[in-house]
Amino acid sequence: MLRLKSSDPGFAKAFARLVKDRRESDENVARDVQTIIEDVRLRGDEALAEYTAKFDGHAPADDDWRIPPEACREAFDALKPDLRAALELAAQRIRDYHRAQLPENRDYTDESGMRLGARWSAVDGAGLYVPGGRAAYPSSLLMNAIPAKVAGVARLVVVTPTPKGEANPLVLAAAHLAGADEVWRVGGAQAVAALAYGTARIKPVDVITGPGNAWVAEAKRQLFGVVGIDMVAGPSEILVIADAKNDPQWIAADLLSQAEHDPVAQSILITDDAAFADQVADMVGVEIAMLPTAKVAKASWDDYGVIIVVDSLDEAPALANALAAEHVEIATDDPQSLFDKIRHAGSVFLGRMTPEAVGDYVAGPNHVLPTGRRARFSSGLSVLDFMKRTSFIEATDAALAAVGPAAIALAEAEGLAAHARSIEVRLGL
Amino acid sequence: MLRLKSSDPGFAKAFARLVKDRRESDENVARDVQTIIEDVRLRGDEALAEYTAKFDGHAPADDDWRIPPEACREAFDALKPDLRAALELAAQRIRDYHRAQLPENRDYTDESGMRLGARWSAVDGAGLYVPGGRAAYPSSLLMNAIPAKVAGVARLVVVTPTPKGEANPLVLAAAHLAGADEVWRVGGAQAVAALAYGTARIKPVDVITGPGNAWVAEAKRQLFGVVGIDMVAGPSEILVIADAKNDPQWIAADLLSQAEHDPVAQSILITDDAAFADQVADMVGVEIAMLPTAKVAKASWDDYGVIIVVDSLDEAPALANALAAEHVEIATDDPQSLFDKIRHAGSVFLGRMTPEAVGDYVAGPNHVLPTGRRARFSSGLSVLDFMKRTSFIEATDAALAAVGPAAIALAEAEGLAAHARSIEVRLGL
Repeated sequence: MLRLKSSDPGFAKAFARLVKDRRESDENVARDVQTIIEDVRLRGDEALAEYTAKFDGHAPADDDWRIPPEACREAFDALKPDLRAALELAAQRIRDYHRAQLPENRDYTDESGMRLGARWSAVDGAGLYVPGGRAAYPSSLLMNAIPAKVAGVARLVVVTPTPKGEANPLVLAAAHLAGADEVWRVGGAQAVAALAYGTARIKPVDVITGPGNAWVAEAKRQLFGVVGIDMVAGPSEILVIADAKNDPQWIAADLLSQAEHDPVAQSILITDDAAFADQVADMVGVEIAMLPTAKVAKASWDDYGVIIVVDSLDEAPALANALAAEHVEIATDDPQSLFDKIRHAGSVFLGRMTPEAVGDYVAGPNHVLPTGRRARFSSGLSVLDFMKRTSFIEATDAALAAVGPAAIALAEAEGLAAHARSIEVRLGL
Repeated sequence: MLRLKSSDPGFAKAFARLVKDRRESDENVARDVQTIIEDVRLRGDEALAEYTAKFDGHAPADDDWRIPPEACREAFDALKPDLRAALELAAQRIRDYHRAQLPENRDYTDESGMRLGARWSAVDGAGLYVPGGRAAYPSSLLMNAIPAKVAGVARLVVVTPTPKGEANPLVLAAAHLAGADEVWRVGGAQAVAALAYGTARIKPVDVITGPGNAWVAEAKRQLFGVVGIDMVAGPSEILVIADAKNDPQWIAADLLSQAEHDPVAQSILITDDAAFADQVADMVGVEIAMLPTAKVAKASWDDYGVIIVVDSLDEAPALANALAAEHVEIATDDPQSLFDKIRHAGSVFLGRMTPEAVGDYVAGPNHVLPTGRRARFSSGLSVLDFMKRTSFIEATDAALAAVGPAAIALAEAEGLAAHARSIEVRLGL
């Protein structure tokens, strides 16, 4: 854990180093991923079968690549009642929040008589990557699938690796609840390539979202443009801004709720009280010992945890803007006044009773958020990631007569004679 | 020019080939671009100077890299009055259209007592690439810069190569009119790298937009994630859906207005009348001969032009959706009925009096549009490309008591004990 004090002479330099370190893997998988993508593009299902045998240790029979809807429904029906109710509450609240994001079409006629507008529509097909192993989270499936369905996507395709053939029943249950249309037993860069280019078995989609390891992320990056993708994602992070009136145990728990995600996750505390900072640091030690996820949480906190003691919390917004963190908690009596000054953050959790974990599951806003300072320019997942906008223009004779000559002047200045001509012939010029 | 008939037995195959061919360069510049980016990242302005000397044939003096605002204002003042008025009309109409795109913030409290919402804000800095040479279009500068300024971007940075030191006065004039804050004499992948990582001279930006050659496009693609970028762009294209009641000369002019952009631009006509198709093809020949841009337009039309004769224009929407073209003109008496069935298109031009060129300059909607079938999943440039959304959550004691237990159940099911713990400690569980 790194401890900084904003009044120390070396602070600016140390903080700049912190801002710069994105903790992202240098693992160079670009060439391997390129090979896999090309292979799947050219050989389709045959290549999928080979990579699945190699990486997931099993090769589904020809009729076993797709997990049937009944298996998903059965997994859902088999859930313990409290877990089923929790998933249903989460789904309902996510659906409600995202429904209000649906954009409005525009269609109006301006004073020149020209009709102008924009019409939104959903993509035809969306692909959702769901990791196997450590990060196989049903909540993540809901957070990706529900916005797609709310957007109006007709075909929602889930791909997920099933190592040794084993599917995660919670993921299947969530797929049923979210209304996934297809679920395929395939993962890795090969699954992303199959979604982008299609194979004989799996039809291509238009947008691919969802978390994954370095190979999956690189495959999405390479296929950006062939399909739409959500933002490049790095390790998770939280910034907690807290005064000394908080219970140190609560703040320690919040810091650890990020740390347990990943050894390279990052938890940062900004506080204006050095004694409180000590108490939180102590409580982190106490709490870690109790966690089944202690090993990961301890690695993250030891290597990437940060406590910054400031003279006044008025310093916090500038630091928060530089960090542009995925999650920002503001645990003070008047969180809004600090929030008003924070421009760059994925999602903000206001007040002492809003631990970040409530946003991971049941609050409603999306938990897929920009990491690694990308909140400077990008947003959490929304229905807009599954939609696109078509603008339109309809000119009357009078409207074209009014604005056409200006277009002709500009086209000529740009040396585009045929552009000018297409207006001139209509105006009889 | 390729001529197809939808009732021919080989049509489906030929049309599928057409849809598949994105006419995009296979030029493999990835490795060279990677080298340039790394070089600029490590050596900054020194690397910029070397690449500029090499590619643009001049090396600005240390105090001459930035084109001063006065030079832009002088270029604007020196415009001929009709051209200045045309630029001003275009800027005003683009501004009006994009202002109405500004998204609304959300802030509400749901029945559980939880406050939820989303707040939009502009990125701090946007970089706009403006090509030198053939594609140095002032209209393009307006179409990129005005949405950024409408979004509220405080720092708008233009980069443009000035081969042999010569800047395009129209581009400088447009930069003045659009309110660009900085204009730098630098182009190519090196300019994009400088915008993304910053140098001693040029501070970094958060989003980079604007057209460019294969090197610029590849640099943007490689830096996606370090900064935000607009969509990957390929050669321009138009699909004209026209019945026999049109003047063949008008339709020929429209097809050529795309063809003159680029030898690999593509113009496609769908009509339900073979004789009309012949007339348009003849008029294309007549019109080309008159164009100063004849060489480019002829290459495009000969190599990539397509005429598809259908039995009925009712077939057109399905073909248009498969092509997902950047521009679609519908020149019929009732264009709306076809438009209602078109789901995938960048921008649609309705009726006989709406040539695409009016949208390039003065209609108001953005002319930066998805190419190469990307209208299936992406949209034209808008203020949203220069903004991002921060979601927020504020729970009360009662709200956390109401939804917290469900979050705990899900966290435990996912094996994330610290997530559960951060809620349990607050609820005294």
